[in-house]
Amino acid sequence: MQSDASLATLFNPDSVAVIGASDNPGKLGHLVLANLVGAGYRGKLFPVNPAGGEILGIAVSPAIDQLPHPPDLAVVVLPRQQVLDTLAELAEAHVRSVCVITAGFRETGRDGFDLEMEMAELARRRNMTLLGPNSLGLINTACGLNATIAQAMPAKGSIGFFSQSGALCSAILDWADGEQFGFSKFVSLGNKAALSEADVLEALGDDPDTKVIIGYLESVDDGEKFLRKARAVTSSKPVIMIKAGTTPSGARATSSHTGSMAGSVEASAAAFRQAGIIQVNDLEALFDLARAFAEQPLPQGPNLTVITNSGGPGILAADACEGAGLALARPGPQCLQALTEALPPFASIYNPIDIIGDARADRYRATLEAVADDETTHAVLTLLTPTASAEIEATAQAIIDTAAACHKPMFACFMGHERVGPGRDMLLAAGVPCYAYPEPAIRAIAAMLAHHRWLNRPHPVEVCFRRDKGKAEYVIDKARKLGLKELPFADAMTVAAAYELPVPETRLVRTSEQAVRAAKKLGYPVALKIVSPHIQSRADVGGVAIDLHTPRDVRDAWLDITSRCQRKRPDAYIAGCMVQTMGPIRGREVEVRFTQDPQFGPLLSFCLAGPLSEMLGDVSHRLAPLTLQDAQDIVREIRSFPLLRGVRGEEPVNLAAIEDILLSMSQLACDFPSIQEAVLSPVLVNAEGALVSDLRLTIG
Amino acid sequence: MQSDASLATLFNPDSVAVIGASDNPGKLGHLVLANLVGAGYRGKLFPVNPAGGEILGIAVSPAIDQLPHPPDLAVVVLPRQQVLDTLAELAEAHVRSVCVITAGFRETGRDGFDLEMEMAELARRRNMTLLGPNSLGLINTACGLNATIAQAMPAKGSIGFFSQSGALCSAILDWADGEQFGFSKFVSLGNKAALSEADVLEALGDDPDTKVIIGYLESVDDGEKFLRKARAVTSSKPVIMIKAGTTPSGARATSSHTGSMAGSVEASAAAFRQAGIIQVNDLEALFDLARAFAEQPLPQGPNLTVITNSGGPGILAADACEGAGLALARPGPQCLQALTEALPPFASIYNPIDIIGDARADRYRATLEAVADDETTHAVLTLLTPTASAEIEATAQAIIDTAAACHKPMFACFMGHERVGPGRDMLLAAGVPCYAYPEPAIRAIAAMLAHHRWLNRPHPVEVCFRRDKGKAEYVIDKARKLGLKELPFADAMTVAAAYELPVPETRLVRTSEQAVRAAKKLGYPVALKIVSPHIQSRADVGGVAIDLHTPRDVRDAWLDITSRCQRKRPDAYIAGCMVQTMGPIRGREVEVRFTQDPQFGPLLSFCLAGPLSEMLGDVSHRLAPLTLQDAQDIVREIRSFPLLRGVRGEEPVNLAAIEDILLSMSQLACDFPSIQEAVLSPVLVNAEGALVSDLRLTIG
Repeated sequence: MQSDASLATLFNPDSVAVIGASDNPGKLGHLVLANLVGAGYRGKLFPVNPAGGEILGIAVSPAIDQLPHPPDLAVVVLPRQQVLDTLAELAEAHVRSVCVITAGFRETGRDGFDLEMEMAELARRRNMTLLGPNSLGLINTACGLNATIAQAMPAKGSIGFFSQSGALCSAILDWADGEQFGFSKFVSLGNKAALSEADVLEALGDDPDTKVIIGYLESVDDGEKFLRKARAVTSSKPVIMIKAGTTPSGARATSSHTGSMAGSVEASAAAFRQAGIIQVNDLEALFDLARAFAEQPLPQGPNLTVITNSGGPGILAADACEGAGLALARPGPQCLQALTEALPPFASIYNPIDIIGDARADRYRATLEAVADDETTHAVLTLLTPTASAEIEATAQAIIDTAAACHKPMFACFMGHERVGPGRDMLLAAGVPCYAYPEPAIRAIAAMLAHHRWLNRPHPVEVCFRRDKGKAEYVIDKARKLGLKELPFADAMTVAAAYELPVPETRLVRTSEQAVRAAKKLGYPVALKIVSPHIQSRADVGGVAIDLHTPRDVRDAWLDITSRCQRKRPDAYIAGCMVQTMGPIRGREVEVRFTQDPQFGPLLSFCLAGPLSEMLGDVSHRLAPLTLQDAQDIVREIRSFPLLRGVRGEEPVNLAAIEDILLSMSQLACDFPSIQEAVLSPVLVNAEGALVSDLRLTIG
Repeated sequence: MQSDASLATLFNPDSVAVIGASDNPGKLGHLVLANLVGAGYRGKLFPVNPAGGEILGIAVSPAIDQLPHPPDLAVVVLPRQQVLDTLAELAEAHVRSVCVITAGFRETGRDGFDLEMEMAELARRRNMTLLGPNSLGLINTACGLNATIAQAMPAKGSIGFFSQSGALCSAILDWADGEQFGFSKFVSLGNKAALSEADVLEALGDDPDTKVIIGYLESVDDGEKFLRKARAVTSSKPVIMIKAGTTPSGARATSSHTGSMAGSVEASAAAFRQAGIIQVNDLEALFDLARAFAEQPLPQGPNLTVITNSGGPGILAADACEGAGLALARPGPQCLQALTEALPPFASIYNPIDIIGDARADRYRATLEAVADDETTHAVLTLLTPTASAEIEATAQAIIDTAAACHKPMFACFMGHERVGPGRDMLLAAGVPCYAYPEPAIRAIAAMLAHHRWLNRPHPVEVCFRRDKGKAEYVIDKARKLGLKELPFADAMTVAAAYELPVPETRLVRTSEQAVRAAKKLGYPVALKIVSPHIQSRADVGGVAIDLHTPRDVRDAWLDITSRCQRKRPDAYIAGCMVQTMGPIRGREVEVRFTQDPQFGPLLSFCLAGPLSEMLGDVSHRLAPLTLQDAQDIVREIRSFPLLRGVRGEEPVNLAAIEDILLSMSQLACDFPSIQEAVLSPVLVNAEGALVSDLRLTIG
């Protein structure tokens, strides 16, 4: 863990030493120094090289212990084998922050990994901030600090950036150069031996020059810490991130690249969401969103008004709007009146407002002014195609003027390249995001709306559980001592009951006669289910019979089930069957489960029971602990939620009963990290309540 | 319908008249002439204006009948009210092709629509090719013809473009200007009064200068013709299209823009797919794909090799690859050997091949050469980030050289802007598509693979049906004469039987005693189902009981069903119940249906029965008539297909039985356009066969 104070010397050093500075322009040790000089850094610079002499007109110290005074920040560009000793020397000299650019550690195998661990341990012991190794360096445009081996210094701006990929940083700096894109801080995390993404995120959150944070990550080291810090940051600033390795192919490439283990895609997506981070899938979206957040206020609602001089792009915008979950605003009567007066008869005054191909700037201006005053409109997107009549720069000016005069977010899409270029440049310079196509503009607006909703989310409600943790602990410990991988069914039921999960009364039986006797005791109707440590999914082997009303039903079912299971799974040991009360529940079947993610801890999942939900990806996820809001959201988030709310006049199922189960499971998952996986499926739910009809607890 | 010969005079006229030419540079009548002159058109130009005189140094004819000889093409830029009479004069003068740029017709309401219809009728009667009205014009770069009101003339190239939106054309021309993007033909369809998208598509298909066709459409006028012509074109050239109005919002905007009715999204998507058209959702994809198809050979398989000097973008590429249905190639032993020799020890020789940040051009070249020879690799994507060591132009040259020497498609992604710009320009000039991010490159490669598969698809198999069309016709006619909206169940069963659909034996009964007698005749077990003209979905009201084994079961079920249905739907007239044989079928439940699409005719749909499939969008579609391949594909295309193929050791269901039903339904839909909708649901299917358990036929 890095303390806050130490990051000040990393980002705002009064002096910087370059350890391994070189007078050979082809060496990285030269490049770093040249970048520092070239970016106009006004603090002291200390090149260090045993050869001494002078580089770029600056006197070189032959060794760290011969520096005139300890620098705030040391940038290390030495061969790998010298790095550890150098760190020790720097610690000895009371240097607070170090950035190691040298590569060849964790990413190269066992030896490198060990060396990196020693460096991290040294930094921890000596309370030294360590960025890298294998970092491209860092930039702070506020004080002209470019301590990188990149080829460019970005313009000043309000976007803070961090990346786990160094070479990607080079690409982004080069790209930003041509796109009027300015940064406040720019940090290449490297191997994250000590300073983690969470630390940098926190520092950027505290940085007054940073308005928007964007980041590229391949792995998260301490999920819990990341989540906690990110949540604090996103309450004041938007954080937009791209997570690489979200497919099996990508995950394989990740681990070969960084040597770090990727957790599950679902867990990191849930973490980002629960931390209020906006996750995007490609770099283009990262920048499109960053610009929008940096320049425009958040929309206060979902209603977008589109102004266009061309029907086609208006339709594409309408399509994109619906796809992104935005709505087309319905302009109010006053606005419609103003539009009717301002526009020619063939214009379409309904949204998308089509002011037709012969529109000049004055028509855009009148439309923008009418729309800016419209109360139903939360955001405005102005499309322009370079028709013969289009006045590109005057239209840009009209948009800029309207944006300056109103509090609504304004966006532009000038379609084309050469002719629309000057208008686009004017808009970007004036802080109106201008895109080449409607789709990215709308994607950005949708993300801003999501952030607005995040900022205005209800205060999280702490949930208090009655539970008998001791009882569950006893049962689980017993199973662990026996070396079991899965809790015996009866024990699993005990745990469930201890956490007040609604389970049916159950008897384990070994003969059909025992089954009949149990059924009599429990009261008809009953269900009969196969019990075998080797059968994971009873339904798949025909191991379940429900709604048995008579002793005869029970005997028939016993024969059916056991013979079918033995035929289908001759390898399975059949321990017997369980007899369960059916209860009053007849309704939908849902599934609640959790697993332990290596990076983020317990991950809860919810879906309709049955193979279709998973196959079609209709499963929602949240990391534990769940807030009440989380429990409500996870249930409503699945696309098949209408089936629970009731279709075609059905009664809705008891959603609170499902939420209670989710909250209890969240508690169970947090109380027992030793439970690797818990599956409640099916959970029967109807208007009255819910009943956990079957469950499995796997322990590790 | 426009004949082929006449399109020759449209695209390659020996002479062009501009009717409504003007010497006022602010008028469109001036712009068209200026564009024709400026683009270097070498045919004869005849400006026509009653004022006579000279424009841009060309003598003006005062009237059409005073032209020295009839022009091949006339471009009309007159006020709306003069257009119809002018068309008549042009026809009189034997002008073969006319492009009407004037707007204010169908898109403005009833009057304009009527006027447009008269123009279309005139053109048809006089066998005159009519492009527009409300067209931006057309361009043929091969003969320097720019008969448009656009602001730019595109470079020569091999891409043919047509668009239903004129202003969009302006945007695209402007965009192409800055992107080294060349066109062969460029056609603004306008209102499509006479010349349709199908005609232009066919013409571009026949055009030797056009290698790739791209188009923007909002509506298709004659679905059957479009499908037929497109299928012919795509067998030789790739056709990439964007269809606007694919959401309800977009569709509303479309009809307000063009006054044309949008058919269903599913039908047009099915049409595009069955015609081999590549459908994309945004303009960016349209151009990205066009460039790839125009410049590179098609990949012969799905295996992509990624070369990168930066791990992060490599991972993003791997993610995108998996998302697009491509695979990462596993380089063969020879290739691995060559890579091991050529690359430093910390490089990753497995795909993505990470040649690390200090790679110079020689390392790229060695890697490219090793990969070009690798037999498992079908396409190569080379990523470059501008690291300190990157040699951007030399790397571009290495890619260009390798691409020239091998038959595999090669793509590049140079990430950044200023520094990578020169390399990017070299690549584009040499015909290697170069993108700014990995994702668009991979999207393009995936589209090319899809086209390769389309070209190599099995020859369509004609399917021959035994059916009793006369019997079905009799039953349907009877119902229509009675004014029924839905066929009575018994009649629907008759139709189904006439088309050899596997239906159970069924008796309609009105009392529980009749039900018991019917069950005895049919043989137990039976199913009992409510019959009511007011109940659409029996299952929703609890109107179905299955697996009834005894008279007692039947009587109980009768009471259950009828009382439940009356309680739930007190408004419904209950005609009775039907008793059905259960047959040997116990298995999965699927649904087969068709509807009549206004643009494309009968659209067949397939999914698993139940509300989940539709809710989660797991439905596949094809337009009738279906080929055998279509029937096979539609079944396999749903994401839940694994359930039919059998999960966890289950037997697969009888897929051929489902395909037979689909083919029979296709025939029924084609034979009877008067059947508005047919729904077979559920269709029970298992390893033995299929049984249509319930069906509804709606007639119009």
